[in-house]
Amino acid sequence: MVVAGPLNVSLTAEILTIGSELLTPFRVDTNSLFLTSRLNDLGIEVIAKSVVGDRPEALAAALRLAVSRADIVVTSGGLGPTDDDLTRDAIVTVAGVTSVESPDVVDAIAKRFASRNMPMPAINRRQAMVPVGATVLDNPRGTAPGLWMPVGTRVIVALPGPPRELKPMWDDHVASRIAAKAGSQRLRRRTLKIAGRGESHVDEIAAPIYGRWRSASPAIETSILASPGQVELHLSAQGTDLEQLDRALDQATGELATALGRAVFSTDGRELEEVVGDALRALGATVSAAESCTGGLLLGRLTNVSGSSAWVTGGVVAYDNAVKIDQLGVAPDVLNDHGAVSEPVASAMAAGVRARLGTSVGVGITGVAGPTGGTDAKPVGTVVIAVDGPGDHHTVRTLRFPGDRAMVRQMSVQTAMDMLRRACAPPDYN
Amino acid sequence: MVVAGPLNVSLTAEILTIGSELLTPFRVDTNSLFLTSRLNDLGIEVIAKSVVGDRPEALAAALRLAVSRADIVVTSGGLGPTDDDLTRDAIVTVAGVTSVESPDVVDAIAKRFASRNMPMPAINRRQAMVPVGATVLDNPRGTAPGLWMPVGTRVIVALPGPPRELKPMWDDHVASRIAAKAGSQRLRRRTLKIAGRGESHVDEIAAPIYGRWRSASPAIETSILASPGQVELHLSAQGTDLEQLDRALDQATGELATALGRAVFSTDGRELEEVVGDALRALGATVSAAESCTGGLLLGRLTNVSGSSAWVTGGVVAYDNAVKIDQLGVAPDVLNDHGAVSEPVASAMAAGVRARLGTSVGVGITGVAGPTGGTDAKPVGTVVIAVDGPGDHHTVRTLRFPGDRAMVRQMSVQTAMDMLRRACAPPDYN
Repeated sequence: MVVAGPLNVSLTAEILTIGSELLTPFRVDTNSLFLTSRLNDLGIEVIAKSVVGDRPEALAAALRLAVSRADIVVTSGGLGPTDDDLTRDAIVTVAGVTSVESPDVVDAIAKRFASRNMPMPAINRRQAMVPVGATVLDNPRGTAPGLWMPVGTRVIVALPGPPRELKPMWDDHVASRIAAKAGSQRLRRRTLKIAGRGESHVDEIAAPIYGRWRSASPAIETSILASPGQVELHLSAQGTDLEQLDRALDQATGELATALGRAVFSTDGRELEEVVGDALRALGATVSAAESCTGGLLLGRLTNVSGSSAWVTGGVVAYDNAVKIDQLGVAPDVLNDHGAVSEPVASAMAAGVRARLGTSVGVGITGVAGPTGGTDAKPVGTVVIAVDGPGDHHTVRTLRFPGDRAMVRQMSVQTAMDMLRRACAPPDYN
Repeated sequence: MVVAGPLNVSLTAEILTIGSELLTPFRVDTNSLFLTSRLNDLGIEVIAKSVVGDRPEALAAALRLAVSRADIVVTSGGLGPTDDDLTRDAIVTVAGVTSVESPDVVDAIAKRFASRNMPMPAINRRQAMVPVGATVLDNPRGTAPGLWMPVGTRVIVALPGPPRELKPMWDDHVASRIAAKAGSQRLRRRTLKIAGRGESHVDEIAAPIYGRWRSASPAIETSILASPGQVELHLSAQGTDLEQLDRALDQATGELATALGRAVFSTDGRELEEVVGDALRALGATVSAAESCTGGLLLGRLTNVSGSSAWVTGGVVAYDNAVKIDQLGVAPDVLNDHGAVSEPVASAMAAGVRARLGTSVGVGITGVAGPTGGTDAKPVGTVVIAVDGPGDHHTVRTLRFPGDRAMVRQMSVQTAMDMLRRACAPPDYN
C-alpha cells in the first residue's frame, strides 16, 4: 500500500509579509492567499504565515525561524528604497552573506525613471543592492526587483508588496523555478458549492463518504467551509500522476454531489449568480425583482456578472409602502390585511414587478432586517421571499434569519438566489 | 523635552492564530484585527502576528519566538477537545511546566453538556488539563476555557478561536489583567474620512501638516489608508494623560479638516451612508434612485443604515432601456440621440425617479461597467451620475473609472454617495 495523505508532501513553504500597516486593526494581508493558492497548485503545503513590521530584529528572527522549518520561504514587501524597507538587510543577516550593488539593476531603475523624464533619486540605489548568491527577479511594473536567494537546500523568494507587482513576478519568474524544485509532485483541488443546507447538515451527509478517502490511494483530503447561506466542500489530492488524481477527484466529487442532491449548485467554480444567469439564459428567460428589506442588493448580486443585461431587465426597490402600491400594483387592502411583511405581499410584489417589467420571472422580497421594526409576530430577521415564474411556477417562503442587519440582508439575498436557481433550473437542468 | 513617538511604547504584543483552515487560500484571520484594536487601546503595539497549522513543532517554535520578543503573546484557537488542538501542549512545552486536570473545569464542561441533556464525551476532559501556574479564563459560550499563563515577566493569553467566544472572553477577563500589566500608558486614535480626492492629493495637503507632529509632545503618528473612492487619515497618540492626548488629537484633527475642506465627510467614525442619512434627515428630505450599471448597489448602500426607511423611499433598477422609458419616463428620443450612457439620460433618470416616487432628491446612474460594452467614445469605466434635488439643485458628472467591473461599480456608488452628500449638506450643514 502506498503511504498517502499529508505525509506525501514533498516540500513545505512559509509566507512572511512585511509591513507595519498590516499590523494595524485596519488591514488584512491578502497576498498570502494568492501565494498559498499558487504554492498548493505545485503540491506545496504552507505550514505557517506571519506578518512582521518595520523592526529589523523581529524581521530577521522571523526569517531565521522560517528558513529553519520550511523549504521555501516567500516574503512580500520591504523591498522599497526607504529606511523602512528591511527585507534585503534581513536576507543578508540570515544567509550570512554580504551584498553588492548590481550595475544592471541600477541601470534598470534609472531607465524606469528616465522613461518618465525623471532623474533617479539617490535613495533608489538601495534597491540595487543584491545579496551575494541571489538571482535578481525583474520587475517591469515597479522599481523594486525581486530576489531568489538559495540558503543551503532551501530558498528565500523576496517579492514586492503591491499585488500588481507581486502576482506577475510570481507567474513570470518564480513559478517555474519552484516547480523545478518541487519535482513532479502536484496538488489538485475540487470544490462543491452548496446552498440551502447548514454546515452540520452537509457534514452529516458528507462525512461518512469522505471519511474513507483519507486512507485511499490517492488520498483525498476534504475540508468544509461555511459562510452565510453557503457551504463549500474542498477536496484535494496530491501525487505525481495528474490523470490519476483528476480521475479520483472527479469520482469523489460525483459521489458527494449525488448524496447532497440539488443543494449542490456548482462543482466547476461558478458562483451562484453565474449559475442562475446560465440557467436563465438556457431558458431564454429574463428576471426582475421587487426588493424591500434588501434594498437593491439582490439586483446588485444578479448584475455582478458581465453580460447580465441579457437576462436581468431591472426592478423596483420598494422601501416605502407607497412604492409597493404605485410602482408594483400591490393592493392597499392586501398590505392592510396582512402587513408589509407577509406572503401575500411578497407574492404580489413578485407578480407585480414581473408584469410591469414584462419579464419571465419576478422575485419579491419583504422583511424586517432590524435592528428596529420587529414585533412579537414578526421579529427582526423575518423575511418573506416569493418567486413568480417562469411560466406557472410560484413559490413563497417565510424565513427567520439570525444575526445583525447585514447578515439578515445577506442571507435574504442568498436564499432568493437559491430559490431563483431552483425555479429556473429544474432537476433536468442541474 | 519629553522623548515621544514609538519609543514611548511600554509593552509589546504578538498574536498567534492557530488552525490549518487559516493556511488555505480561502480564509483570512480576522480575530487578529479585533485583538490589535483592543491591544492598541491599551497603548500596546503589536509587533508581529502569525498563523500556524496543526503541527506541534511549528506551533511550539512560533510560540517560543513570540515569548522571546513580545511582552504579551495572545493565541487564538487550538483549545478544542481533539488531537488537532495543540495550544495547551505548546504552552506546557514552551513554559517548561507540566499540566494537571482541573476538577472545576471538568465540572463546568460537564454542566454545559448536562444543560443540553447530553453526557460529557470523554474526549472533552482534555480541555480540563491546565498548565501549572496558569489561571483558567471562564468561557460561558463554549467548552474551551481560556488560559492566562505567566512566563517570567511575560504572559501567554490563550483564547478560543470562534469570535463569539474570543471577544467576550477578552472584554470580560483579559482586558483588565492586561491593563494592570500595561500601567497607565494609553493609545488614542482619530480618523478623518475623505471622499472625492485621491491618496496622493490628500497626502500633498496633509503631509506638511502632520509632518511636524511626530516630534511634538505628545507625538502624533499619522497613517494614510486608501480604498476605492475613499481615503482615511488615522491619527494616534500615546501617553498617560488622556485629557492631554484627546486635546492634542482634537486640535490636529481640526487642522487637517480645515486644510482638506469639504472632502472630509466624517471625523467621528460615521460611514458615508450614515453622513448622507443624517443630512437627509436634518433636511426632512427623502431620496430615490434610478440605477443602471450599478444595478441596485447604490440603494443597497443607502439602506445599510438601520432606520433608513425614514429617508430612503425606494427606486428603480433600469438595466434595460425599456425600463428607463416605461418606469422612469426617459424620452425615447433622448436615448436615441445621446445614447443610454449620457448626461441627458442620467439627468432624466434622476428627475424621473424623483417625480415618480415623489421624493425630495433623485439620483440617476448610467454607465459601462464592463468588461464588455465599451466603445471608443464611451470606453469601459465611463459612468454618468446625476443628482436632482433637493429643491432646484441639479448636478450631473461624467466620470471615467479604472479597474474591473466590481471596481467600476464600487467607485460609481461611492461617487454618487459623495455627490448626494454635497447636494444635501451644503457647507453650512457640514
